[in-house]
Amino acid sequence: MDKFIHTYFVRVRYADTDQMGVVYHARYLEWFEAARTEMLRDMGMVYKQLEQSGIYMPVVEAYCRYRKPVKYDELVRVRTALGDISRSKIRLDYEVQGERDETVRVEGYTVHCFMDESGKPRRASQELLSFFQNISCLSI
Amino acid sequence: MDKFIHTYFVRVRYADTDQMGVVYHARYLEWFEAARTEMLRDMGMVYKQLEQSGIYMPVVEAYCRYRKPVKYDELVRVRTALGDISRSKIRLDYEVQGERDETVRVEGYTVHCFMDESGKPRRASQELLSFFQNISCLSI
Amino acid sequence: MDKFIHTYFVRVRYADTDQMGVVYHARYLEWFEAARTEMLRDMGMVYKQLEQSGIYMPVVEAYCRYRKPVKYDELVRVRTALGDISRSKIRLDYEVQGERDETVRVEGYTVHCFMDESGKPRRASQELLSFFQNISCLSI
Amino acid sequence: MDKFIHTYFVRVRYADTDQMGVVYHARYLEWFEAARTEMLRDMGMVYKQLEQSGIYMPVVEAYCRYRKPVKYDELVRVRTALGDISRSKIRLDYEVQGERDETVRVEGYTVHCFMDESGKPRRASQELLSFFQNISCLSI
Repeated sequence: MDKFIHTYFVRVRYADTDQMGVVYHARYLEWFEAARTEMLRDMGMVYKQLEQSGIYMPVVEAYCRYRKPVKYDELVRVRTALGDISRSKIRLDYEVQGERDETVRVEGYTVHCFMDESGKPRRASQELLSFFQNISCLSI
Repeated sequence: MDKFIHTYFVRVRYADTDQMGVVYHARYLEWFEAARTEMLRDMGMVYKQLEQSGIYMPVVEAYCRYRKPVKYDELVRVRTALGDISRSKIRLDYEVQGERDETVRVEGYTVHCFMDESGKPRRASQELLSFFQNISCLSI
Repeated sequence: MDKFIHTYFVRVRYADTDQMGVVYHARYLEWFEAARTEMLRDMGMVYKQLEQSGIYMPVVEAYCRYRKPVKYDELVRVRTALGDISRSKIRLDYEVQGERDETVRVEGYTVHCFMDESGKPRRASQELLSFFQNISCLSI
Repeated sequence: MDKFIHTYFVRVRYADTDQMGVVYHARYLEWFEAARTEMLRDMGMVYKQLEQSGIYMPVVEAYCRYRKPVKYDELVRVRTALGDISRSKIRLDYEVQGERDETVRVEGYTVHCFMDESGKPRRASQELLSFFQNISCLSI
């Protein structure tokens, strides 16, 4: 069984590469952002609307493990999974793979807390918690 | 006489380069931002405080001409000059050169309008206009 | 008749925005890069392969005119057209619009020369020139 | 005793911020890059020259913990320390603080392996290992 429940495709641009000819390591965090936002959208939650309802989910931790380089013009898959979920924070796991190739190039995670508009931490509502718990039971 | 009245130094990072081994073309606009902000600060105007007083100067046009590449770990100079100034907009000119080398690698400009907090265009006050006119009379 | 022959969609990320709540002005140049690369791919030319054959098309000029802001989570269209074409350089024009909205938010262009692997300018072959001329006759 | 042996200053730009009005989380990895490169330079090692001698130190892991936001136009300190050192990899630790304020806003680390030009892992020479070991004995 595969914990990764969503796949987001990214095409590597010149803008993403550095002079070693590979994707610059900080860029993966931007791809993770895009991947989780699209995962949420596909699950029915538009993150922008969540913010409009007064709930923010800022990144409080981020980690990447760079295994194999990703190169210019490659089409890669960023796969997202839900990790630990609680009322105070949730973790998302990511894996970057080639378009058809199972080798994990980069893996990582982000941890998000819940915050109101004023920047104060708040606990997730039962409804929000259930939303994430339901997603994490999915498999593809 | 030299119209460039301010010099800002930048060290090129891996983050700035692309797989051709040179600075990615969009990065120069970030350097221009840093250069004009520091020019204003050195002239006595903290742009952040200008915003806090309700005046914003968003970029409405930007242009770059890439003449010679800038490479990893180079220390370059971004020189700034004031171009046309009116109550509705101002133009800033930029030149990127090596640390000791007069060759112009990149040149460009940005045009800024004046805007209030709500995003509406407004005319610069006489005081603000005079500030820019005084700067543009300087030479180094 | 519409000179814009290709449409590329971009979803705006947090990574693209700045504290004014709009897309940071330098980012559009990255979107232009993505748009022209996908236009070429759709027309049958993979830019990466062009490079592998020894022909590079670096950006020698870039211009943007920012008319209306683009905001977080918007899905925007970047439309690309061919401008002047010669054996020494070509120009591409871009327009950024909302997903369904015809208002031009940002417009701009990039000029590209032809270069060999060593960084020397070279003239485009008749074949390459014809490729671009044929594209520029298309309309959608 | 303070393990952080080097301080690098960064001024926050619009380019660094996102629509929450704080530094976008991926940017800190760029600051860490700048901080470690300047630490090495100040200790007598120009990373670019290390590369020219055939030794590369790519990032194989990166981690950030975001404690408090950093805002537009702040001048922040990025402090660097050496963590574990072995012939196969080294770890660097970072801390981001305000200009005069001891509160840790962001902390993190990067792990680097040693690689030759062809991308193969190699063990650090005794000389290189000693260089890092000597640095890690410093305190400020």
